[in-house]
Amino acid sequence: METSRLEIFADAIFAIAATLLILDVSVHAPGASLGGVVKHAWPQYAAYGVSFLIIGIWWVNHHHCMKLIDQADRAFLFLNIALLACIAFLPFPTELVAEHLRDSGVRTAAITYGLTMTAASICFVSFWFYAATGRRLIANTVDQSVVTAFSRSTLPGLLINAAATVVALWSPYTALALFAGTALFYVVGSSLFGRD
Amino acid sequence: METSRLEIFADAIFAIAATLLILDVSVHAPGASLGGVVKHAWPQYAAYGVSFLIIGIWWVNHHHCMKLIDQADRAFLFLNIALLACIAFLPFPTELVAEHLRDSGVRTAAITYGLTMTAASICFVSFWFYAATGRRLIANTVDQSVVTAFSRSTLPGLLINAAATVVALWSPYTALALFAGTALFYVVGSSLFGRD
Amino acid sequence: METSRLEIFADAIFAIAATLLILDVSVHAPGASLGGVVKHAWPQYAAYGVSFLIIGIWWVNHHHCMKLIDQADRAFLFLNIALLACIAFLPFPTELVAEHLRDSGVRTAAITYGLTMTAASICFVSFWFYAATGRRLIANTVDQSVVTAFSRSTLPGLLINAAATVVALWSPYTALALFAGTALFYVVGSSLFGRD
Amino acid sequence: METSRLEIFADAIFAIAATLLILDVSVHAPGASLGGVVKHAWPQYAAYGVSFLIIGIWWVNHHHCMKLIDQADRAFLFLNIALLACIAFLPFPTELVAEHLRDSGVRTAAITYGLTMTAASICFVSFWFYAATGRRLIANTVDQSVVTAFSRSTLPGLLINAAATVVALWSPYTALALFAGTALFYVVGSSLFGRD
Repeated sequence: METSRLEIFADAIFAIAATLLILDVSVHAPGASLGGVVKHAWPQYAAYGVSFLIIGIWWVNHHHCMKLIDQADRAFLFLNIALLACIAFLPFPTELVAEHLRDSGVRTAAITYGLTMTAASICFVSFWFYAATGRRLIANTVDQSVVTAFSRSTLPGLLINAAATVVALWSPYTALALFAGTALFYVVGSSLFGRD
Repeated sequence: METSRLEIFADAIFAIAATLLILDVSVHAPGASLGGVVKHAWPQYAAYGVSFLIIGIWWVNHHHCMKLIDQADRAFLFLNIALLACIAFLPFPTELVAEHLRDSGVRTAAITYGLTMTAASICFVSFWFYAATGRRLIANTVDQSVVTAFSRSTLPGLLINAAATVVALWSPYTALALFAGTALFYVVGSSLFGRD
Repeated sequence: METSRLEIFADAIFAIAATLLILDVSVHAPGASLGGVVKHAWPQYAAYGVSFLIIGIWWVNHHHCMKLIDQADRAFLFLNIALLACIAFLPFPTELVAEHLRDSGVRTAAITYGLTMTAASICFVSFWFYAATGRRLIANTVDQSVVTAFSRSTLPGLLINAAATVVALWSPYTALALFAGTALFYVVGSSLFGRD
Repeated sequence: METSRLEIFADAIFAIAATLLILDVSVHAPGASLGGVVKHAWPQYAAYGVSFLIIGIWWVNHHHCMKLIDQADRAFLFLNIALLACIAFLPFPTELVAEHLRDSGVRTAAITYGLTMTAASICFVSFWFYAATGRRLIANTVDQSVVTAFSRSTLPGLLINAAATVVALWSPYTALALFAGTALFYVVGSSLFGRD
């Protein structure tokens, strides 16, 4: 089975999940002037920006991973679907965080965000190792050292997301700063030092 | 007529229908704490997961089917559109089930879900047999035994969906368990024993 | 300029517009049982089905038209965008019709639906004739008789949509029956007698 | 890294952002007849049309730009994601403008619209110059004079958007007329004088 339709399907879901984030940015706030609403709504804008960036990073990683793979089987398709289900879920915890950043609900919101990110990481690691184990779905033209390097590169993301989720139990703001900071750090780091 | 635009159009609709499911997962619940909302909302999460998986399975089957087909005519395009209209309808009964899982509306919700799934099955069977009858749209490179095997494989899904819909008249929970269980069973089974 | 990105962009908008129609099918109806809601909501289901089919027909025609064209210029891209803006607008009059089918608002709803369809027809005719005039963007491999036949085939749709819009001023139900009937007639007719 | 998945991802986001604009066109207006609603809602229709056109123009420019580029690196992917985040944000200020065109909130709405457009322009200029500087990602087949001409053509848009945003501080209606007028002027001008 070829991978082109898998990539189109994945691209579409990444794109839709990112674009649906705007629906969480709300126009209506009863009892406040428009100027006040816009100023008051900065958690929505920040949450939009960070989650859009995070979905973008997932897409870049998916993209990078699929360049090494040239076939797919049923199990691989379903691992892909599980990953996409986590990505498409992200607008929900994003909205939770945006709405509750300044009230006591922020802990639950940050934990929900973290669990979604951790679940996505677990799916991505499973997705990749299913393809890479014994070079099951890896293209013949890809050098084994590239496969090994990619395998190593998938684990820090999982650890950071799981750790930040645990941190959210005690300090939701630290956890949220970790998610945003890691995303920004990743963008800068991989732009400067990435080799493709 | 080639099939590439048909596949892109179908992939987009599968992807959008799956991603729109998140809009049914609601943040707002007047008179409850955020923690309570998240705990209280498990039917929404379960409905999201099951319907996302079911749409993913439809996509895999559509994908698998289109690998055997290398042309399209007008009637085939419209059968495809009818199938996609059923898939794109699924977020509605999903929301019905999620909202009414714990009240008396669950029967109607399960029946609506079942009718949508049965309609999708009928469309898919029609779509496939239109293409396969007399090898009307089948690629020359595909062996007839593959076509016959695929034809046989389309019928159990139709029967299960129709049966579960009838079951929903008496026992909506059994019907919903059938939809979820069949989807999980299919994923595990076809991952272990699928040959592509 | 090649036409592949134009087609992907168009396919995506057709697919999204069709899938967004489900957002108009509402779960909530204060003061009615779920069973009553589902029975009461048939205009929403009918409007969903008819508009999904109509968007599907537009997609088929766009698809058919683009097979004859192998290049694009700026004006052609903008005519395409104007057509897509009309298609993407269709969920709004669809919701108007679904909500007001049984009250006095049906006239305005039918007129709005008709104006949108007429605008889409005008855009489509402009889009096609811009490409076809002097074979400006037509592929060399396409016979002129095919171009002439396609040109002729675009006009009845425009006339029917414009006529039904005028009819809506006096009899909105007749107009709505015309839109639905024409769509069904087109599907059956072109499936039976279409030659591609 | 090839650019095809970048283009599919971008096309999907342009298409979704444009299509989501229809969700801002509202059916409900308590205490008004349907006819009154439709007549009353013209700012929504105008905002829909203008923003759809503006997103279409961004898509055309992105399309045009990508024809000159035949590879991508990490930094380029993230600049693309930043641009798409601005485009996908546009439905929010569009809704602000549509809702507040006739009340005192119009100033804030126009400024928000302008800041989004200016941010998109800055991202687009960065995106292009990152690729063009030293012909980093430019295809070998593209003549340097084409690159230079495209570089020059990106600056007026940035200047107009920044200037209109400043104008919005004093005269929001002038600013909004500038955004709409520039879009229409661009469509007519590039259709008449564009050479691809």
